[in-house]
Amino acid sequence: MNSMQMLKKEINLVEKMIRKDVATEATVKNLYEHIFKSNGKKIRSRLNLISSSLHRNKNKIHRIRLAAIIELLHTATLVHDDVVDDSSIRRGNRSVNNIWSNAHGVLIGDYIYSKAFMYMVDIGNQQILQELSNATNDISQGELIQLDAINNKEITLNKLKKISYFKTGRLFEASAKTGAILAEANKKYIENISKCAKNIGILFQIKDDLLDYSTNLKTGKPQFQDLKEGKITYPFFYAYKNANNKQKEILINSLGNKKVQTLKILELIEKLNGIKKTEDLAKQFYKNAIIFAKEIHNIEVQKEMIELTNTAFNREK
Amino acid sequence: MNSMQMLKKEINLVEKMIRKDVATEATVKNLYEHIFKSNGKKIRSRLNLISSSLHRNKNKIHRIRLAAIIELLHTATLVHDDVVDDSSIRRGNRSVNNIWSNAHGVLIGDYIYSKAFMYMVDIGNQQILQELSNATNDISQGELIQLDAINNKEITLNKLKKISYFKTGRLFEASAKTGAILAEANKKYIENISKCAKNIGILFQIKDDLLDYSTNLKTGKPQFQDLKEGKITYPFFYAYKNANNKQKEILINSLGNKKVQTLKILELIEKLNGIKKTEDLAKQFYKNAIIFAKEIHNIEVQKEMIELTNTAFNREK
Repeated sequence: MNSMQMLKKEINLVEKMIRKDVATEATVKNLYEHIFKSNGKKIRSRLNLISSSLHRNKNKIHRIRLAAIIELLHTATLVHDDVVDDSSIRRGNRSVNNIWSNAHGVLIGDYIYSKAFMYMVDIGNQQILQELSNATNDISQGELIQLDAINNKEITLNKLKKISYFKTGRLFEASAKTGAILAEANKKYIENISKCAKNIGILFQIKDDLLDYSTNLKTGKPQFQDLKEGKITYPFFYAYKNANNKQKEILINSLGNKKVQTLKILELIEKLNGIKKTEDLAKQFYKNAIIFAKEIHNIEVQKEMIELTNTAFNREK
Repeated sequence: MNSMQMLKKEINLVEKMIRKDVATEATVKNLYEHIFKSNGKKIRSRLNLISSSLHRNKNKIHRIRLAAIIELLHTATLVHDDVVDDSSIRRGNRSVNNIWSNAHGVLIGDYIYSKAFMYMVDIGNQQILQELSNATNDISQGELIQLDAINNKEITLNKLKKISYFKTGRLFEASAKTGAILAEANKKYIENISKCAKNIGILFQIKDDLLDYSTNLKTGKPQFQDLKEGKITYPFFYAYKNANNKQKEILINSLGNKKVQTLKILELIEKLNGIKKTEDLAKQFYKNAIIFAKEIHNIEVQKEMIELTNTAFNREK
């Protein structure tokens, strides 16, 4: 089996581990099974497994468990995000808050979070616990900063980057770092793979922002959602910076407007270089990720990380 | 200084520790400060400090930190509960979801949860981590079971007891247990104080249910909230069991009815022994708590636990 096939097998084990461990209480069970019935992209747990694959078969059960933790943490944030954003669709299915209620979304999110911490305690590695509790804290901060930035047209590029890092890059980074810690890798490896992963994560988020402004229908998500929610992301940010007063007014009026004429706005944002500049920004993070990937000495891991960077860069959903 | 005074001083240190550690991000800071500007009863962190006071000055910084963790975990559940129940008042102030939004409540709750886990990792005790991550998971399960039980007039006494244990007794139990673990107490002490605390917690919850059906104005909470939200608690449960068909109909119609004639319903529930039977149940848990308290050999701790049991039993808010 080559390393790609092994990785695929490991991802299957992660899915099995998550699905197997269901509470007996019917309420909890139904919610949990609904959430995990459709598979996400699992890019974060994949990243974690790549990072810990430095010693593939040493500590195998802990490797799978750690990847499951990453997936649980990520899923908990998604479930809470759906409440925060009042989203009705997740991974092609109706969201928990849509089928049940916000209350169910909040509580099953807490359930999944604490389940992740229970698994972490089982692994019993102090550094891993530290990194993941810090990352979880940073993610919630990132989401809060983003919430506060809604409709704030004065937002700076630095603030946008901080949001992308905290809400997305941070868990990518922690996934790589904890995988490396579990593999007892040396300092250089931990540093390179963490930085590579952080850049992939931010790249992934920038691409997510771009996809929201695309007319691509593969995402399974509603289009122009950020704009309609009043969230300023990179395409809007860059376009607004280049806009004249009249264009600024049009852009501001579109923000948070559920009935916005999306194609017209897209045209304007394109004309004002909002898409192009965001693509350039994505390229920067892509390049940085590749630089750090190439510093990883283990050839298998290096190859996988480069491939993951390419996947993030070329994502269409 | 007697042990009561020392405990008071320690509680102050807990409050200071929590308030001192604020994020620099304005959004996070404002929410956090709003939440911690009014003091709760701190019965759980007090319990934790009593339990760890077996060796009062050994590991003092960790004792304070652990009590802060308990308070943070409890506060996180309150903030999420206010979203779940759509409550507008908490500790005499407007709730986060009321001033800001549900989204803010969800995210700052996550922030406080993960902050608690960060502190736990600092303490670095595997058993404590295990107990607290398990307890957090059980609490969310308790809340979910309760949510599912809304308007369910077929609910059993066992289910109600499970809800009281999971949503309230569990954190009381974990507070005592982790305090004892930190103090490196023997197995007997851990067991007795944990069981005592579990009973105090359930007692505390039963009293909470009773206060919701009282005309006492000290609680700072709205009255008949459980009934209006469709939550069946002990007074309703017992009354319903004793009701004839006509009375059953009146009770069912009052459930989840925001415009219910509360005094009329209270009169009916009293007539059907709902209050009396709930008070009897409270007495059972009171007695059990006292039995386990008396098994604690350390006289200071025993005294404090008995006092705490009395406080819970006599609570008027």
